[in-house]
Amino acid sequence: MDSFAISNIKSGSNRLWVHFSCLCFVSLYGLYLLYKEYKVILALRIQQLRRVRHRPEQFTVLVREIPFCVEHKARACCVDHFFLKHLPFTYHSYQILYDGKDLEELLRQAKVIAKNIEDLSQGGAGVEKHKREASLLDQSEKDVAKLSLQQEKLEELRLKIQQLQCEHMLKEKELPVAFVTFKSRLDAALVSQSQQHSHPLIWITEMAPEPRDVSWRNLTIPYRILPLCNLVVVLAAAFLTLFFAIPVTAVQGIAKFEKLKKWFPPAMAVQLIPGLRSIVTGYLPSFILNGFIYLVPFAILGMAKLAGCSSKSKEEIKACNMVFYFLVGNVFFLSLISGSLLDEIGEYLSHPRNIPAHLASAVSAQADFFVTYILTNGLLGFSLEILQPGLLSWKAIKSCCRYGRGKEKDPFLFSLPYYRVIPLVALSVLIGMVYAIVAPLLLPFLVGYFCLGYAVYINQIEDVYDTVYETCGQYWPYIHHHILVAVILMQITMIGLFGLKAKPAASISTIPLLILTVLFNEYCKIRFLPTFYNYSIQNAKENDDLDEKNNHLEINIENASSAYCPPCLQPWNFMESVSSSTDPLVSSQDLKINDLSP
Amino acid sequence: MDSFAISNIKSGSNRLWVHFSCLCFVSLYGLYLLYKEYKVILALRIQQLRRVRHRPEQFTVLVREIPFCVEHKARACCVDHFFLKHLPFTYHSYQILYDGKDLEELLRQAKVIAKNIEDLSQGGAGVEKHKREASLLDQSEKDVAKLSLQQEKLEELRLKIQQLQCEHMLKEKELPVAFVTFKSRLDAALVSQSQQHSHPLIWITEMAPEPRDVSWRNLTIPYRILPLCNLVVVLAAAFLTLFFAIPVTAVQGIAKFEKLKKWFPPAMAVQLIPGLRSIVTGYLPSFILNGFIYLVPFAILGMAKLAGCSSKSKEEIKACNMVFYFLVGNVFFLSLISGSLLDEIGEYLSHPRNIPAHLASAVSAQADFFVTYILTNGLLGFSLEILQPGLLSWKAIKSCCRYGRGKEKDPFLFSLPYYRVIPLVALSVLIGMVYAIVAPLLLPFLVGYFCLGYAVYINQIEDVYDTVYETCGQYWPYIHHHILVAVILMQITMIGLFGLKAKPAASISTIPLLILTVLFNEYCKIRFLPTFYNYSIQNAKENDDLDEKNNHLEINIENASSAYCPPCLQPWNFMESVSSSTDPLVSSQDLKINDLSP
Repeated sequence: MDSFAISNIKSGSNRLWVHFSCLCFVSLYGLYLLYKEYKVILALRIQQLRRVRHRPEQFTVLVREIPFCVEHKARACCVDHFFLKHLPFTYHSYQILYDGKDLEELLRQAKVIAKNIEDLSQGGAGVEKHKREASLLDQSEKDVAKLSLQQEKLEELRLKIQQLQCEHMLKEKELPVAFVTFKSRLDAALVSQSQQHSHPLIWITEMAPEPRDVSWRNLTIPYRILPLCNLVVVLAAAFLTLFFAIPVTAVQGIAKFEKLKKWFPPAMAVQLIPGLRSIVTGYLPSFILNGFIYLVPFAILGMAKLAGCSSKSKEEIKACNMVFYFLVGNVFFLSLISGSLLDEIGEYLSHPRNIPAHLASAVSAQADFFVTYILTNGLLGFSLEILQPGLLSWKAIKSCCRYGRGKEKDPFLFSLPYYRVIPLVALSVLIGMVYAIVAPLLLPFLVGYFCLGYAVYINQIEDVYDTVYETCGQYWPYIHHHILVAVILMQITMIGLFGLKAKPAASISTIPLLILTVLFNEYCKIRFLPTFYNYSIQNAKENDDLDEKNNHLEINIENASSAYCPPCLQPWNFMESVSSSTDPLVSSQDLKINDLSP
Repeated sequence: MDSFAISNIKSGSNRLWVHFSCLCFVSLYGLYLLYKEYKVILALRIQQLRRVRHRPEQFTVLVREIPFCVEHKARACCVDHFFLKHLPFTYHSYQILYDGKDLEELLRQAKVIAKNIEDLSQGGAGVEKHKREASLLDQSEKDVAKLSLQQEKLEELRLKIQQLQCEHMLKEKELPVAFVTFKSRLDAALVSQSQQHSHPLIWITEMAPEPRDVSWRNLTIPYRILPLCNLVVVLAAAFLTLFFAIPVTAVQGIAKFEKLKKWFPPAMAVQLIPGLRSIVTGYLPSFILNGFIYLVPFAILGMAKLAGCSSKSKEEIKACNMVFYFLVGNVFFLSLISGSLLDEIGEYLSHPRNIPAHLASAVSAQADFFVTYILTNGLLGFSLEILQPGLLSWKAIKSCCRYGRGKEKDPFLFSLPYYRVIPLVALSVLIGMVYAIVAPLLLPFLVGYFCLGYAVYINQIEDVYDTVYETCGQYWPYIHHHILVAVILMQITMIGLFGLKAKPAASISTIPLLILTVLFNEYCKIRFLPTFYNYSIQNAKENDDLDEKNNHLEINIENASSAYCPPCLQPWNFMESVSSSTDPLVSSQDLKINDLSP
C-alpha cells in the first residue's frame, strides 16, 4: 500500500504538490473540526453544569493547608474564623476532614462482625445446608457460643469507635483540609479562583469535586509534597515508557518454544497436534507483548493514584494521558523503528535534524503493519470489551472460593475504563492521521474500526457500565491534545517525506503549516481551556437565578453542607440493624457542623 | 588572575574538591540569601500596599473586551448591566475609555493657541525685547491683529471640541475597555482574579494600574492581538540580540582612521598632536561599541512600548528583562567567544554537550578582561549617571533654539531609568558569580563597584529622580530571576571546568546542585510569585478594616471612581484662564459618571 503511495509520488515531481495540497487540506480541515468540536463541547459542558446545578460541588470549595490555631489547638475553628471574617455574608458552613484510618479499619471490622452475627442468627440458612442436616444439634450449640463471642467483640469495637468518634479525639486527628460551603454558586466560584492569603501556600482553594468522586485517601497527603509526588509519578511513567521494551524482549527471549520444552516439559504435548507448534512459535511473542500492554493501563492508573489528585476523575484523566504517551512510544514508535525506544531517542537527540527524514522512511515502510494492527487489535479489543473476560474470570475465581459468597450482592457494575479506552482510540486516530496522505488505503479500515467501535461502546456505555463520576467534559481538552499531537506528527512526517523525495520547497512550505498548528493549539488553550477548569461568574449567577426562581437555593445549600461527610463519620446501615447506640455519635457530628455554621 | 586559579587547580587534583565545596557553598548560600530576600521584599510589598491603601487602584479593576450592546448601541451600558446583575452589592461605578486621538490633538492645538494668546496679551514681555524697542507701535498693531486671529481660532477649536465631547459623539468612540470601581478592596480583588464569562476572551479583568501609570495609548489596542504584539516584540528583541554584532562590526570597520582621513579630511588634524592618533585608533572601536550599547536600552524600551502593556511600569519591566538578556548575549558571551553570537549559538545547538567545556575554557581565559570591564564601564557608567550628559546636551540644544523657551518650565525631573540601570547591575552580579570560584581576585573590584554604585544611586534616587509610578516591589521577581540565571551559569561553567581538569566525579556531582537550583526556582515561583501579581483576600480585608476604622472608606471609593479620567476628557487649566465655556463639558462628563453609577 505504501509502495503505491510512494510510486505515486515518484511518478511525477509535480504530483508532489498534489500531496502537499492534500496535507494542507487535511491539516486545516482537521483544525477547523477540532475548533468546532471544542466549541460544541464547551456549550454542552455549560448546559450540563446547568442541568446538574443541584449538585453540592457547585456550592463547595475545597480548602487545603489550613493553618493550626494555637489558641484553640485546632484547625476547625480557624476555617470558621477565616471565612466569617473575610466573607461574612456568603459563607455558610464547613466540613473538616479527619485522619480516620484506624477508625475506618475499626468500622470495617465491625461491619464484618455484624455480617457474621446476622449470618449466625439466621442459622446460616442456605450456607451450610449439607452439614446442618448431618449434625443439627451440635451445630446450633456451636452457633450460640459463636454468636455471643461475636456480639462481645462487636460491643468492644462499638466502645472503641465511640471513644474515637468523640469530638475531643477527632480534634487531634484533624487534617488541614476542609470542604467549605457558600450561600451561592457565585461566591463559591469567586473564592475558588482567588488567592486567600499573602502566603500562597496556605488557604489554597479550588472547586470541590463531586462527593462520590472525592479521593479521601489522597486528601490526607500534605499539599506541600504534592509537586514532588507528581514529579515522581511522571518520572516513573516516563521510565516505564522508555524501558518497557527491555523486560518484554527478555520475556519473549525466554518464552521461546525450544526453551519452554526444556523448562516446562508438558509443552511437548503441543508437538502432538500437527501445525500447532508453528502457531505457538509465531504468536507467542506477540501474545506476550499484548499481554504486557494490556496490563500497562492498570499499572499506570496505580501510579496516577499516588500523584495525590483530589478526585478519582483527575487520577483517571492523568492515567489516560500517560497511557496515551506510553502507547505512542511503545506501539507506534517501536513498530516504526528497529532497536529500543531509548536508543532511538538518543539517536534523535544527537541529530535532531534527521528526525523527519528518519520518521518518513520508517512510516512509509510500515503501512501494511498498521493495517494488520488496526484489524487484529481493533477486533480483538472490541471482542474483549464485549465478552469482558477479565470480569468473567474474576467471577469464576470468586464463585470457587467461599469469600465472595456474602449476603451483599456484587452487582458487577463498574465505570467505563476511560484510561484504557481513550488512549487506544487516540492511538488509532494518530495512525490514521499519519497515514492519511502517505497511504490513504489504510483509511477505510480505520473507518470500519471506528464504526464498529461506536456501536460497541454506545452499547457498553448505555447498558453495561455505571456512571461513577461526572466531569462535565473535562476529558475533552486531553482528547483534543491527543488529536493535535497526531496532526503535528503527520506534518513532521510529511516534512521528512518531501525532503526524502528531494522536494525541499514543499518541505519548507510545510513548516508554516506546523507553526500554524502550534499557534492554533495555543489559541485553543486561551479560548476554551479556562472554562473547563473555572466556573465562570456569569454561569454561576445564571444558575443561582434559576434556583432562586424555583426556590431550590436553600435546599441545595443544605444538601451541599451535609454532602461531604468523610467516610469515617458516615452512618452505616449495619449499625442500625445491630445496635442503635452509634446513632448519637453520628448526630453529634451533625450537631457539631450546625453549631459551627453561622 | 585566571592563570592563578587554574594553576591552583592543576597543582593538586585533591584541591579540586576544595573548589567543589566552594561551589556548593557559594551556590547554597546564594540560594539562601535569595530566599531570605524574597521573603523580606514580600513583607515590604504587603506593608507598602497597606501604606498606600488610599490609592484608587486598590478599588479598581481594569475590564477589557467589553461586548457591544446591540440594544443600546453602546458598550457603557453593558458594563453597568453586567456588574449590576452579577455583583449588585459590591459594584460602585465605572469609567469607560474613548478613542480620543483627534480630541487629544485638538486639545493640544487649543493649548498651544491659548499659550500664544497669553503671550501676546502680555505684550510678548521679555520675549522680543530688542525688537519691541525698535518698532513699538508697529508691533502692538500687529499683536492686536494676531490676537484677534488667534482668539477666533481658539473659539473655532472650542466649538469643535465641544461637539466632539458631547455624549452622543463620545458613544461612537467607545473602546471596549473600562475601569470599574468596587465598594471594597476585597471585592475588587475577587473580581480581578476570577473568570467572568464562559467565553474567557470577553470580560477580561485584571487589577488596574495606578492612574498616573496607565498607558492610555496601549489600552486602545484590541486585547485579541496582544499575544501577537508580544510575540513580535520578543522576536524583534531576540533578532536585535542575535544580530547586534553585525552592524557594530560593520561600523567599526568603516570607522578606521585610514578611511576616516579619506572621507573626512579635518580628521587629519589629529595627526598634528603626537600620540593622539594612537589613542583614537585604539579607542574608536570600543567607543563605537559602547555608544551602540548605550542606545540599545532606549531602542528596547521603544519596542516594549509596542507590546501593548496596560501600564508604563509593565513596559519598563519588560524592557528591563530584554535588556538583561541583550547584555548577557552581547557583552558577556560576545566577550567570551570569537566570532558572532549567531555562529556560536549554531555551534552550541549542534553539539549541546560541548557547551560547559567550551564555556569553561573561554571563561578562564577572559578573567582579566572582565576586571577591566568592571573598572572602566563601572566608573564610566557612574560618572555618566552623575553628570547626566544626555540631559545637559538636551538642555543646551533647547536653549539654542527658540522652541524650548516657553512659559512652561521643564523641571528636568525624570524617573530612574530602571530598564538601563537594573540590567547593568544584574550583569555585574552575573560576572561576579561566574568568576567567584574561577578567579576570586575579581571580587574585590566588584565589591568596590557595588559600594560606589550604592552611594551614587542612593543619591540619585533621593535627590535627582522623581517617582512616576509605584509597583510595590514588582521588579524583584525579575532581579531574582537574573541572579538565578547567574548562579546557573556559574554551575554550568564549573561543570565544564571540572570536565576540562579531568575530574568527571566533581563534574557529575555538580549536576544535582544544578537540579537543586532549578527546583529552588520553581519553589520560589509557587511560594512568592502569586502575591506579586494578586491582591490576596486577607490583605484586602485587612486594609478595608483599617479604612473602616478611620472612616476613610467612602472618601477612598469616591476618589477611585473619579481617578481614571481618560486624558481626552481631563479638564485643562488653560481653558479656565481663557474661557469658562468648556467647564460645562467637563462637568457633563462628571454628571454622566454620576448618572450611571448606582
